[in-house]
Amino acid sequence: MSNDPLVVFTPSGKRGRFPVGTPILTAAQQLGVDLDSVCGGRGICSKCQITPSFGEFSKHGVTVHADALSEWNVVEERYKSKRGLKAGRRLGCQAKVMGDVVIDVPPESQVHRQVVRKAASARAIQMDPAVRLYYLEVDEPDMHEPTGDLERLKRALKAQWDIPEISTEFSSISLLQQKLRAGHWKITVALHKDHSSALPKLIAAWPGLHEAGLYGLAIDLGSTTIAAHLTDLETGLVVASSGIMNPQIRFGEDLMSRVSYAMMNPGGDAEMTRAVRDAIDTLAQEIAAEAGVEMTSILELVFVCNPVMHHLLLGIDPVELGQAPFALATSGSVRLTARELDLRSLPAAAQIYVLPCIAGHVGADAAAVALSEEPGKSDDLALIVDVGTNAEILLGDKTRVLACSSPTGPAFEGAQISSGQRAAPGAIEAVRIDPATKEPRFRVIGSERWSDDPGFADAVAATGITGICGSGIIEAVAEMRIAGILDQSGLIGSAEQVGSPRCLPEGRTHAYMLHDASAEGGPIITVTQGDIRAIQLAKSALYAGARLLMDERGIEKVDRVVLAGAFGAHISPLHAMVLGMIPDVPLDKVTSAGNAAGTGARIALCNVAARAEVERMVGEITKVETAIEPRFQEHFVNASAIPNAVEPFPELAQIVTLPQVSFNTGGDGEGRRRRRRG
Amino acid sequence: MSNDPLVVFTPSGKRGRFPVGTPILTAAQQLGVDLDSVCGGRGICSKCQITPSFGEFSKHGVTVHADALSEWNVVEERYKSKRGLKAGRRLGCQAKVMGDVVIDVPPESQVHRQVVRKAASARAIQMDPAVRLYYLEVDEPDMHEPTGDLERLKRALKAQWDIPEISTEFSSISLLQQKLRAGHWKITVALHKDHSSALPKLIAAWPGLHEAGLYGLAIDLGSTTIAAHLTDLETGLVVASSGIMNPQIRFGEDLMSRVSYAMMNPGGDAEMTRAVRDAIDTLAQEIAAEAGVEMTSILELVFVCNPVMHHLLLGIDPVELGQAPFALATSGSVRLTARELDLRSLPAAAQIYVLPCIAGHVGADAAAVALSEEPGKSDDLALIVDVGTNAEILLGDKTRVLACSSPTGPAFEGAQISSGQRAAPGAIEAVRIDPATKEPRFRVIGSERWSDDPGFADAVAATGITGICGSGIIEAVAEMRIAGILDQSGLIGSAEQVGSPRCLPEGRTHAYMLHDASAEGGPIITVTQGDIRAIQLAKSALYAGARLLMDERGIEKVDRVVLAGAFGAHISPLHAMVLGMIPDVPLDKVTSAGNAAGTGARIALCNVAARAEVERMVGEITKVETAIEPRFQEHFVNASAIPNAVEPFPELAQIVTLPQVSFNTGGDGEGRRRRRRG
Repeated sequence: MSNDPLVVFTPSGKRGRFPVGTPILTAAQQLGVDLDSVCGGRGICSKCQITPSFGEFSKHGVTVHADALSEWNVVEERYKSKRGLKAGRRLGCQAKVMGDVVIDVPPESQVHRQVVRKAASARAIQMDPAVRLYYLEVDEPDMHEPTGDLERLKRALKAQWDIPEISTEFSSISLLQQKLRAGHWKITVALHKDHSSALPKLIAAWPGLHEAGLYGLAIDLGSTTIAAHLTDLETGLVVASSGIMNPQIRFGEDLMSRVSYAMMNPGGDAEMTRAVRDAIDTLAQEIAAEAGVEMTSILELVFVCNPVMHHLLLGIDPVELGQAPFALATSGSVRLTARELDLRSLPAAAQIYVLPCIAGHVGADAAAVALSEEPGKSDDLALIVDVGTNAEILLGDKTRVLACSSPTGPAFEGAQISSGQRAAPGAIEAVRIDPATKEPRFRVIGSERWSDDPGFADAVAATGITGICGSGIIEAVAEMRIAGILDQSGLIGSAEQVGSPRCLPEGRTHAYMLHDASAEGGPIITVTQGDIRAIQLAKSALYAGARLLMDERGIEKVDRVVLAGAFGAHISPLHAMVLGMIPDVPLDKVTSAGNAAGTGARIALCNVAARAEVERMVGEITKVETAIEPRFQEHFVNASAIPNAVEPFPELAQIVTLPQVSFNTGGDGEGRRRRRRG
Repeated sequence: MSNDPLVVFTPSGKRGRFPVGTPILTAAQQLGVDLDSVCGGRGICSKCQITPSFGEFSKHGVTVHADALSEWNVVEERYKSKRGLKAGRRLGCQAKVMGDVVIDVPPESQVHRQVVRKAASARAIQMDPAVRLYYLEVDEPDMHEPTGDLERLKRALKAQWDIPEISTEFSSISLLQQKLRAGHWKITVALHKDHSSALPKLIAAWPGLHEAGLYGLAIDLGSTTIAAHLTDLETGLVVASSGIMNPQIRFGEDLMSRVSYAMMNPGGDAEMTRAVRDAIDTLAQEIAAEAGVEMTSILELVFVCNPVMHHLLLGIDPVELGQAPFALATSGSVRLTARELDLRSLPAAAQIYVLPCIAGHVGADAAAVALSEEPGKSDDLALIVDVGTNAEILLGDKTRVLACSSPTGPAFEGAQISSGQRAAPGAIEAVRIDPATKEPRFRVIGSERWSDDPGFADAVAATGITGICGSGIIEAVAEMRIAGILDQSGLIGSAEQVGSPRCLPEGRTHAYMLHDASAEGGPIITVTQGDIRAIQLAKSALYAGARLLMDERGIEKVDRVVLAGAFGAHISPLHAMVLGMIPDVPLDKVTSAGNAAGTGARIALCNVAARAEVERMVGEITKVETAIEPRFQEHFVNASAIPNAVEPFPELAQIVTLPQVSFNTGGDGEGRRRRRRG
């Protein structure tokens, strides 16, 4: 056994003996310990900070003496005096092994550190981004041995970083010349290498040591909103999140009306493409300004979106997605550059990764949900529902994952609802109805108080009570059912039948009045029979999709339900189940995954292996097309009843008893009318 | 030995036995015989045409009977009746082996056919282009098994062409959708794969079978003119050649004045970049229109150019090339797309290859000359001179090749000459002077007659006699030296000294009058002492560069001289040697290579291996920088004399005796003047 000092690294536990005088960074590199370095051991980037531990370590069988590391040298002293170092920290490239030593690598010095997400349920993101920085000292040009700046830079990459060959994004070449000279032949380059790159690709450069960081954008491109998360590609932390309305709304509220716009208007697809790209450009600039990040430091973008937005983003005519067989132009992941997407505020060479689509109706957003929620790794059978204008539904466990999409329409987002509105201050977002008195109380976005709390009026004075949003309408309908205002078929009873003056006649049907603000010049907010029908259509579509996947899998119940999507985060599990939106499970088995699509985008941004993973996953998912499946219609019709005409909801029955009322006095409203006419 | 029929292919001589019923195309593919096919054996592209031979072939030991091939089938009959087939031809994919047979593959059915160049000296170009066409039948989309159009196309490529994986140029994806449907799921795709591609790349597609051909542009981007050769990438033939003035001339006639423009005017480089790209765009459209070729069929461009044009084309600031150490931003070859160069008339995915540069003064044009003339494969020592505004000089043989560039200035192109003009109708291009009478005769561009031929006046009446072009001034000066009008130092004698009234006094010096058209309102065309000085500067620079390479190689004489460049084609070897432009060699060892840079571009366009070859070559060439070499000055001063102050020209002496005259009556003109003043 060698007499060289023993070096033990924590937390990895890797250990080895090294000759006296070996820099800690060198020891780490030889052992494969995850210790970062951008400057290549020159003592200027400080990425390789480590913490030596001293004393007796029986666990490691080592005693570390005070002189186990070399004294501070001039480089380390200079760094500390100029930039500062946390107490106990040393620069790994300067501190040398003098005796047995235990070295802790703090998370911020690890390239592959884990980023713990806020949501309790969520798994950590392992950092392994595609883009990395390399500091280089490049030879000056020499007339006697003429070579190009790029060729000398490549030589330096090989000599100083052992990177034998790179490719180059053309737009980055023209910028090297000036940057090499501005940095006096010292330069930091960004190389991009993801799971499918043949070679690392040079995509950006800065004079000298680049200290302004490296960022990426995870973008969830929705039909209604575009959300972006500006992410530090070194720490994995989201430094700013921001959203913007999708300007394509002016061409059509929902996806199919945008497809129609493209069909009816030659060049309409190009018009929508330009609009969405401009919006992304604007959003990128706003979010960078908000976080104080330079646009030139944003070098990668990851997109998730539904198939129609996918095509419109990429400049592909979406018309095929509006008609059977719903053929995607490409279903695989797409890699391109900001220049190719014409995103003008970003560096031309910024790399773009668009997640793969699952099918013509089940997009990259659903793939991102799969990446985030990993149904394929689940021990129990999970149903994951991403609720939006279309619902994407995943069902699976370790054995097999199935996916479909179901056309819920925009009712869940407050659209096509008489008093509906988007979730914004002033919107009713939560409702409770007293089963005895049939009187409602509610909460409005912008205030935590309920409408029967003291001070409510003052709290909402600024916004008023302007309408009802998606989660509000779901709770209202479910509460009406619990309170016996609504029967199983979805009919609202009359004032006499229900015993409440809030049931107002409206033509041949009835509406339930939630709030009358007309005295203050505000609206009268009611839930009409039409609203109930809209919610019934939406929830039936959602349930029928889920049920179709369960049929395909040959099961009658699932073990748990995950509600994803920004809206999913606000749905009350009890109310969703009363409505029969989701299959019957114990209430504590319904969880929210928050914006799972956005999280999937962040994971793919921070970890290249996750890209290979999602591509593999998507290939293995069984796609189910709701449009051509007769059982879908059957499930849809059954699901129209609240909660369901034929399926028992035993778990629901344990926590709430739905009144056995029926307000149909000889057929539904329309049936009655027809008979009267006959 | 098998009893299967023997199939012998000519001209390759490849042979093998195949079961009765094997299609000839299949037999060829199994033997590795070079037989083309785009449609994959479906009998629609006709690329696989072959000619069976019948009778006794003792050379091959085969007797071919009349029934050696299968009868014409319906596919072959239909093709013949619709499109026609040359007598004796069959479709290789339809005709099947029935007995022993000899099959000739005509050149037009070979992918790797040779294209014989016109110039006698030139080697043939072996066809092996980067872009090839593949006809595919793609599965229609299926709702039950949803995949993207691109993914189904990839599947077809694998199944039908055994191409397991491709990459895709993004801009080509969006076009697939419509083309697949327009061709009813039959499509022709163009794949690009050159010497450094990891995978074939999808760059274009057409509905059905694409029959409009596949083209490339070989572009010689000069300081003064941009020349393009539109080349059929299947046959290798140039279908049209055209040129356009380089619009950058308005920013500066020569390269250094353009570099100055970029230095003095912020954004000046971008302005020049835009100008040259627009001109290339215009030229591409004009040449395609001239040849009746669709722009969408032009899928590759190869550029050769000097370093300053290289940087200005690529959008790189050329300022570094105007000052020591003359550092190129990149010296390697550059691969990019028409979209990245913003060439808007070409398909966005058209591929661009720019040859590597040799050094800061020795560009991709010199590399192209090396590729065309192959000094590194020469048994004897060849000096290759590409004469233009700068002269690029290559010296070498199998052992070693050296290169330099020499700043000859524009005098050889007729610029900075008192009666100089570009080579255009009306310009004097050839001159002879009678040594006895000192009377000149000359020829003018636009007519084959000499000025003392009958009918000359009529022949030039349309153009007039407007000036003297580059080859004209070289001949004029050399003839003046041979006739004793000019002494070794370059002084023109007076009328008395020379004995001719054509020697006119001009200030303190003299001029020789070639032609007086003033009676017809035309110019008086003279060769002035200033003109002689300009030619002396230019030729001294050229000779000094060549001599420097000879020093470096340690030799006193070369075996042969190749004059390249459009201008090189018009220089008379004798006159060039009288002037001492080139080293002394036997006259029959001076040849013209025509536009060797343009030929090099064509070779690189037609053959991907040539790209690897030129990259290797450039790496092995010894670069010599004239600007820092003291011996260059020494050679330059010696070369000022005509032909040379110190070097003997024994080969020249054998064919012409230069008169031993001296018109210096006590120093040169300026020396005399100075002395008189003193």
